Order: sequence, then structure tokens, then C-alpha cells
Amino acid sequence: YLTGFWGSFGFYLEHNDKKYLITDGRYTGKASELMKERAGIELVIFDTKFVEIFGKNFSGDFQCENSLTLAQLANFKKWFPEINFIPTPGLIEAQRQIKSEAEIKKITQAQAHVDQVLIPFLQKNLKSGISEKTLQFHLENTLKAENKYGLSFDPIVAFGENSAIPHHEPSERTLKLGDNILIDCGVTLDRYCSDVTRNFVFGEPSKKYLEKYAKLLNIQNQVLKNYTDKISVKELDQTVRDLMGDDSQFYTHSLGHGVGIEVHESPRISTKSSETLEANQVVTCEPGLYYPGEFGIRIEDLLVIRNQEPDILSKITKDLISFNEVGDIHVLIKDS
Amino acid sequence: YLTGFWGSFGFYLEHNDKKYLITDGRYTGKASELMKERAGIELVIFDTKFVEIFGKNFSGDFQCENSLTLAQLANFKKWFPEINFIPTPGLIEAQRQIKSEAEIKKITQAQAHVDQVLIPFLQKNLKSGISEKTLQFHLENTLKAENKYGLSFDPIVAFGENSAIPHHEPSERTLKLGDNILIDCGVTLDRYCSDVTRNFVFGEPSKKYLEKYAKLLNIQNQVLKNYTDKISVKELDQTVRDLMGDDSQFYTHSLGHGVGIEVHESPRISTKSSETLEANQVVTCEPGLYYPGEFGIRIEDLLVIRNQEPDILSKITKDLISFNEVGDIHVLIKDS
Repeated sequence: YLTGFWGSFGFYLEHNDKKYLITDGRYTGKASELMKERAGIELVIFDTKFVEIFGKNFSGDFQCENSLTLAQLANFKKWFPEINFIPTPGLIEAQRQIKSEAEIKKITQAQAHVDQVLIPFLQKNLKSGISEKTLQFHLENTLKAENKYGLSFDPIVAFGENSAIPHHEPSERTLKLGDNILIDCGVTLDRYCSDVTRNFVFGEPSKKYLEKYAKLLNIQNQVLKNYTDKISVKELDQTVRDLMGDDSQFYTHSLGHGVGIEVHESPRISTKSSETLEANQVVTCEPGLYYPGEFGIRIEDLLVIRNQEPDILSKITKDLISFNEVGDIHVLIKDS
Repeated sequence: YLTGFWGSFGFYLEHNDKKYLITDGRYTGKASELMKERAGIELVIFDTKFVEIFGKNFSGDFQCENSLTLAQLANFKKWFPEINFIPTPGLIEAQRQIKSEAEIKKITQAQAHVDQVLIPFLQKNLKSGISEKTLQFHLENTLKAENKYGLSFDPIVAFGENSAIPHHEPSERTLKLGDNILIDCGVTLDRYCSDVTRNFVFGEPSKKYLEKYAKLLNIQNQVLKNYTDKISVKELDQTVRDLMGDDSQFYTHSLGHGVGIEVHESPRISTKSSETLEANQVVTCEPGLYYPGEFGIRIEDLLVIRNQEPDILSKITKDLISFNEVGDIHVLIKDS
């Protein structure tokens, strides 16, 4: 994030006004190319003389990320014997929350690709008897578009009762008429992630499903508008729970999370968090209702916090669409 | 590994003769199913009363893995306020090195799938003008076989001069007659990884390529036989360097690594390590020669250490095969 460098070994050091990228001989070429684009970062190659020539020049207190492992910290202590490392929660993650317009553009483009391909994909692929795993496999291919995009995560494809498990792993369960379908997926572009969840039906759903979908959609649309600069995340999530009433017992996770070079990053939008949202954060809004053994619904949008109303990046319709065996589309509930 | 449980939150605690799996409410169903199969592990659900009811019951010195992050350790200290955590290198990883026959069977099956599909895949897909990225995309699909298998890692596909970069990321570089091709790939079956690297040519390679391939193949075959119970890994890697002579300057990584639920795990087979190999470890043997701007060759087998000679799991031929535009095969160098 700080250097643009990605590899299996590398770290970044900042001291007074000096910035260093340290990596090993395998990456000399790639890293020195990159550093030409990023003025002010010096490339240091880690070799057998590293401690003697470089590491020993630094002493005193240095903050480090607390996403380091204990093993990595033990190495750093060996390589910088005079440094006192101070694990600091959110050292870089806090900076990463606020996105530049260049970062927002990548996420927007990644999401736009998903928006474009998802419904045509389902028209072509939803058939009685297809398994969650097979649909997931073909969805991955469509999302990746010959590796023009990566995957933010293995897409979740859940039919019927399996959709009641928020983190369901696609199984051999096959699709049949009357099933609801939950799809949670995202792609990466230049390492930046998108993330969206939509719900569909194959044939005719139950009355209960229709009723709960309409209810959740209404709540999600209401709370979306509240995603503004300086709002308390605790308050956002609590609003959803209040609007759900008795159904809030079936809402078993938090409302959302930041999205960037990781698909889950700060801030966490949860009743357990005391943060506020800030302009130019990219976050999700994803309330869900999960009825064990019956069905689950999660409606997830991806959005950019602005001063007033947020920019919604995920443009796929939230109409509840029914598909039939030959890919015809029928709108059951219209998004307002 | 210890419990068979996989999820986004969970940890394992062992104290005297008691064993516990701790996870949260999302996984109650899945985890209690699993624990029925594993007698002797008690399931504990992490909720708001966890510290009061469970965490406070433990005190004194407890070893922990040093793959924990500083943030995770800080959490554990909150959840178990009376415990003194002692980071211990290789606490579980050491156990993981020695595989059961059930684990070896999964790795064998994963590797057998790659062995079966790789050459037919290349016959069908190698054409002038195909890019590394596109070939990688189609290779991933073939390897995954409609998600019957996972990927151990994103396969490396490198043409010509790009193969001189050991960890090359597939690019838009297109294939042309005369190119050598390096493919490093593996699949997972029930979370267990396979790993293999093979080299091919499209059309006629250079004399230098043929000469270096023959040399490296000869060395790799010699050192493979030395992979026996109790041999020093330093000695193994040093043998390769000695056999290479002046060319050892173009061998820029270590000889191999353990393979299991992670594609890189202990032991590390390197001149920097003081370990010995042990029966029932699954490891790689992968010497390489990398000539910057020209080409690279890496010949990697996957094998099980036994008392005498190892079981070689990777059965794809090490003959140097040339492909032409229509998928005909021509053996340039015969493996002895």
C-alpha cells in the first residue's frame, strides 16, 4: 500500500524524513522499477550483510503494525538490534480507510464489471439440477474474464436452506424450482476489491420469502441514506436492528465493513464499534435475515461516503427477480 | 489441523488432558457435527460471557504458536487474563511435518490429478500468440475441474525470458515459436496441497537451453535419490550446488520445502537450515537455473520420505517435450 510493491518478502521503514523499501535479491529489478515512479523511497536489498550495514544504524522507539506475526517481530528484533518496537493498532490501516479518487476509481471499475455480468450469467446458467459448486465454478470464470480481474474472495453461492448460513461454502446441493438463491461476490482490479450480495429466485418463492425480502429491502434502503460523513457506526447498525423489530434475532452479523486492498478492512460497522464514518471511505451496507432450515437474505451494497448522500457503487438491481428454466426474467418485487 | 475445523474465527486450547475448540455462534452447527467425529474435544462458544465463564479458569504458562499476530495475542491476553503466553516456534508446525497415511493419500490424489491433465491441456492450448495470463486462466480451470479441486496457489506460467524470474507473475507476454515454457502449479484436495514444476518448449529451443536442461535434469535425478530418512537438508542443497559448479550462481533459491495443508511448510530444505529429513514428510525437490534475460528452468518433484528411497508422487514425465502449433509432441531429451 505504501510502496506499490508486492512480493513474498519485503518491508517498509520510515525514519525522520527517510523512507525505505527492503526486499531481497529476487525482486531487485521489479522493485527498482517501482521506486522510480515513487520518488523519495530508497530501495535496500536484504542480504547477509544487512544487519551490519543497515539494521544497526537505527535505534530507539519505532511503531510497527500489529498485524505482524510474533515470528516476524522476532526477526525484526534480530535485524534491528537497537530498535524498540511498539506494536500499534491501526498504524497503516487507519490511513488506508480514506481512499484517494484513484483508489475509488479502481473499486468502481471492479464493481461495474460485476454489475454488468451477474444477471446475464444467471440467465444463461440457472437450470434445475445445477449444483452450488458448479454454478460457483462458472461464476468465477465469468467474474475473472480471462484473468482481467481477480477474485476478492471465493464467491458464495447458496440455494434454499443453505442461504440461511451467512458464510455458506458452496456444496453439491442442486437447484430446484422454488429455491431462493443468494450470491455474494466481488472482483479485484489492480489489487482493489469490490463486494456485493444479491438475492434471486428460481420459479416461485414462498410467501414468507417475499414478505421478508420486501421488509429487508425497505430497511436496507432506509439505512443506506444514513451512511454519511461523521455518523456513528453503532447508531447505523442499531437503526437496522430497531427497524427489524422481532426479526432482529435473525440478523446475526454486523452491518458492514471497509473495502480496499482487502475485502474486509477498517472501519467495522457494528454495534460493538465506537467509530464514525468519514468522507471517502468505501464501505458496505449489508443487513441480512437468516431463518435456519428455511432461507436467508442479505442485501449488500458497496458505497463511498461523501458529505451528503453516499455514492452507491453497486448498480445491480435490487428488484427481486425470478428466473425460469430458459432464462426468462420476471420481477416479483420492484425496488422503489 | 488439530480439530478439522475451518472458519473465520476459532482457536484451540489444550490444558492437562482437556482439549477445547472455541468458535462463535455462526459455527455452532458445523463445529458440533465435527466434534462428534473427534472424541475428546469439547466445543466452547465464544460469547459476551466468555472471559467470565471460561477464560478466567486458566492460569500459568501456556505455549502459543508464533504465527499469531500481535493483535491476536493482545486479544488472547484479554480473553485469558491469568495466562502467561509463551510464543513457541514450530509448536504445531513441527507435528504437521510428519504426515499420516491418510494425509499422504490426499496429497497423492491431488498430485495425480495434475499429472493426468497437464500435458493434454498443453497440447490443446499452446498456440502462437496466447498470453501467459490467458494460458494461466485456462490452466486454472482445467486444474479445478469444476471445483472438484482447489488451487494450491495461482499457477506460474512463464514464457522465454520471463521464466528466468523464479516467482514470475503471468503477464501479457505472448507465446512464439522457439520459446521455452515453465509451469509451476498444484491443486488441493480436502485442503491438502500438491506442487510440481515442469518445463516445455514450443518449437525448437536454443542449444544452451537443451544443454542446461540436460544438466539440471541429471542433477535433480541424482539428488532425488538422496532424499532419505535422517539426511541433513543442508547437505542435500549443498550437493546440488556442488554438482552445478560455476552454474550454481544461477541457482538463486533453496532446494525445497514441506507440503501439506500449506503449500510451503516445514521443513525448509536449504543450506541455511540445520534440520534432517524424517520418514513420512512430504517435501519438494526443485533445483533451478535462471539466466536473466534468457530463460529459466526449474524441475520440481513432490515426494514422500521413506526409510530407503523416497516415493515420488509427481509422475508427469521429465522428458523435455516440444509442442507444435497443432499439439503434436516431440521428445527432445529423454529422462533416464
